[in-house]
Amino acid sequence: MMQPPRRGFDIVEYELRVARAQKAMHAEQLDGLLLTTEAEVRYFSGFQTQFWESPTRPWFLILPAKGEPIAVIPGIGEAGMRGTWIRDIRCWPAPRPEDDGVSLLADGLNSLPRRFGRIGLPMGHESLLRMPLADFRKLERGIAGYELIDAAPLMHALRFVKSAAEINKIEYACQVTSKAFEALPEKLAIGMTEREACQALRMDLLKLGADHSPYLIAGSGSMSYGDIIMGPTDRVLEDGDVLIIDTGTVYDGYFCDFDRNLAFGTPADETLAAHECVHRATDAGFAAARPGATMADLFNAMWQVLEAGGALGNNVGRMGHGLGMQLTEGPSVTPHDQTVLEVGCVVTLEPGMCFAPGCEMVHEENIVITENGARWLSNRAPVEMPRIIRKQS
Amino acid sequence: MMQPPRRGFDIVEYELRVARAQKAMHAEQLDGLLLTTEAEVRYFSGFQTQFWESPTRPWFLILPAKGEPIAVIPGIGEAGMRGTWIRDIRCWPAPRPEDDGVSLLADGLNSLPRRFGRIGLPMGHESLLRMPLADFRKLERGIAGYELIDAAPLMHALRFVKSAAEINKIEYACQVTSKAFEALPEKLAIGMTEREACQALRMDLLKLGADHSPYLIAGSGSMSYGDIIMGPTDRVLEDGDVLIIDTGTVYDGYFCDFDRNLAFGTPADETLAAHECVHRATDAGFAAARPGATMADLFNAMWQVLEAGGALGNNVGRMGHGLGMQLTEGPSVTPHDQTVLEVGCVVTLEPGMCFAPGCEMVHEENIVITENGARWLSNRAPVEMPRIIRKQS
Repeated sequence: MMQPPRRGFDIVEYELRVARAQKAMHAEQLDGLLLTTEAEVRYFSGFQTQFWESPTRPWFLILPAKGEPIAVIPGIGEAGMRGTWIRDIRCWPAPRPEDDGVSLLADGLNSLPRRFGRIGLPMGHESLLRMPLADFRKLERGIAGYELIDAAPLMHALRFVKSAAEINKIEYACQVTSKAFEALPEKLAIGMTEREACQALRMDLLKLGADHSPYLIAGSGSMSYGDIIMGPTDRVLEDGDVLIIDTGTVYDGYFCDFDRNLAFGTPADETLAAHECVHRATDAGFAAARPGATMADLFNAMWQVLEAGGALGNNVGRMGHGLGMQLTEGPSVTPHDQTVLEVGCVVTLEPGMCFAPGCEMVHEENIVITENGARWLSNRAPVEMPRIIRKQS
Repeated sequence: MMQPPRRGFDIVEYELRVARAQKAMHAEQLDGLLLTTEAEVRYFSGFQTQFWESPTRPWFLILPAKGEPIAVIPGIGEAGMRGTWIRDIRCWPAPRPEDDGVSLLADGLNSLPRRFGRIGLPMGHESLLRMPLADFRKLERGIAGYELIDAAPLMHALRFVKSAAEINKIEYACQVTSKAFEALPEKLAIGMTEREACQALRMDLLKLGADHSPYLIAGSGSMSYGDIIMGPTDRVLEDGDVLIIDTGTVYDGYFCDFDRNLAFGTPADETLAAHECVHRATDAGFAAARPGATMADLFNAMWQVLEAGGALGNNVGRMGHGLGMQLTEGPSVTPHDQTVLEVGCVVTLEPGMCFAPGCEMVHEENIVITENGARWLSNRAPVEMPRIIRKQS
């Protein structure tokens, strides 16, 4: 297995991200970019902390049209931010409900060199404003001289194309998870619960080198499962069941996101056929994935296979998405997403279908786009589901 | 150790939450409440999924002034939501960037019985709007007949007071974590890294019955650490170091949140004194915690001890907070927070101080307020830090 990539990034990685962003900002006539979410702040600063789990305090990063980013953050984060390449760090003693960084942030934005009078803020699809709405309204009044422009497309475009160092981290997360999935069947038995199966995988992922698994779900049922985002539950796995486990497992802040299907005892013929079909659809998506193809092309290539295989529908809403610092990133593999793939884009292929009432079959792999087409980041699953024959003693 | 509490809640738990909320809504003259975050949606529905890790799709819950909650959610969640007590479930095929649930949500709000023309939405301190800002602006136009009222105080007041079933889950998370912390010293050695120490604890937490640990950080340094929200890093633990590990570990969707300090080799006298001081401050906070006391009372009781013990300052910004479905919940233990403690409130006591330049000492325990005062949920830490003497072979 590949060696764990070195943690963190060289400063030049951040300098390049800033340079790409500032080029795009110039094209959009932005004097600055205001970012509020974990992934966006980390993307430009390298500030990596689990503390975003606490919703109490807002955190801000300002990227000026020229020069380095400015961190406007709670005092509790000052020592940590000093460990990054960011030099302009402005703190307030949070939580301070009467002015939780708003005036400090407004001052920072108002003192930017003003050329266009426009500030970019992610506001569109797949964006989030991580600060209280009432504080944002105060901020709007405090920076009334600026027009706020949706910077979600700009941020998505930047982040969709990964650097070599980013791809390495994602690939390592994929490799660790592939190994753990490959070793999983021998740890399972008929009579175990979904929860026991998931915790066995969770432990093995840690042993193999993952940092943690923020997403690790299971679904199961006779013939197949009817849902792919809940669980695990204490449902006991029985002869004839199919179990899906899907995980977003992280190494150094970068996710893999793929699933595996496992058969308990003797699977039904329809189940085997459905798995073969989604597996083949994944191959079709892989074949279609190359620079210049669109996300819609991937969808169409996969859906054709599923339709021919008797798909009754798909209630997931898409068949893949971007992947990197978050479990899911834009864009989406849908019939209407015309985002063009470039070298360095990391994508999940996630064909799924309803093949009988209440029975879903979803498969997923992770790929990166190279000059010559796609390359698997996860180890390709076998066409035949692993079978669990052993009974729990 | 206590038995793991049964997962989930009886429906009556949700009915009581709804009844308490609707009483408060009546007082605030609200026709409905609009909720968008994981904890808020789960609080009234019981819908528990790790899928919120994906930022792609928004999820909504409407609580009318009378009657049951209405879920307005992406199709991918329909099967899961059908497993809860919620009966009115309205879905759209997300992601659908051109109308990602906005019109369906507006229809739901507009068809509520209208008495006051006011909808509550958490907008103030410690709140978050988990949908794209551009979609929210569309929604505002779609429900222009309503006035939007900040419902953050209402939601904080409701959630701060826990039911017996909620307290059980938090206590179990605390108990598992206490056991894991108590067993940790024998797993550590001089020469290990912060990361190795944290992963040893993470595995043990799983073995002892935790679901997962969304927050598990470490800080270390000669004499003490200068930061309590970063890490773990690959820093090697040496003779004279202090290591803090802080974890938010979860059982059935409920968090504990406390830390432990460990001494490697022979700690400095100032370090021992600082630990004894924050430990004593915790006891002072505990003694002050009873129905009728305020969060400010807890702060003052603890700060008095720290100041007498030579505290140079505190850059955490508070010395504790509410705890439950999230790692941190309002209110905060600050000098100005006048929130009154009631029976059933769960709070972290987290006295911390800078005791030398660059040296912090932070201690933390979890308590619940009972009629007779506070009760520990975490096992009280020993006054003396555990000492790690063994060297890694």
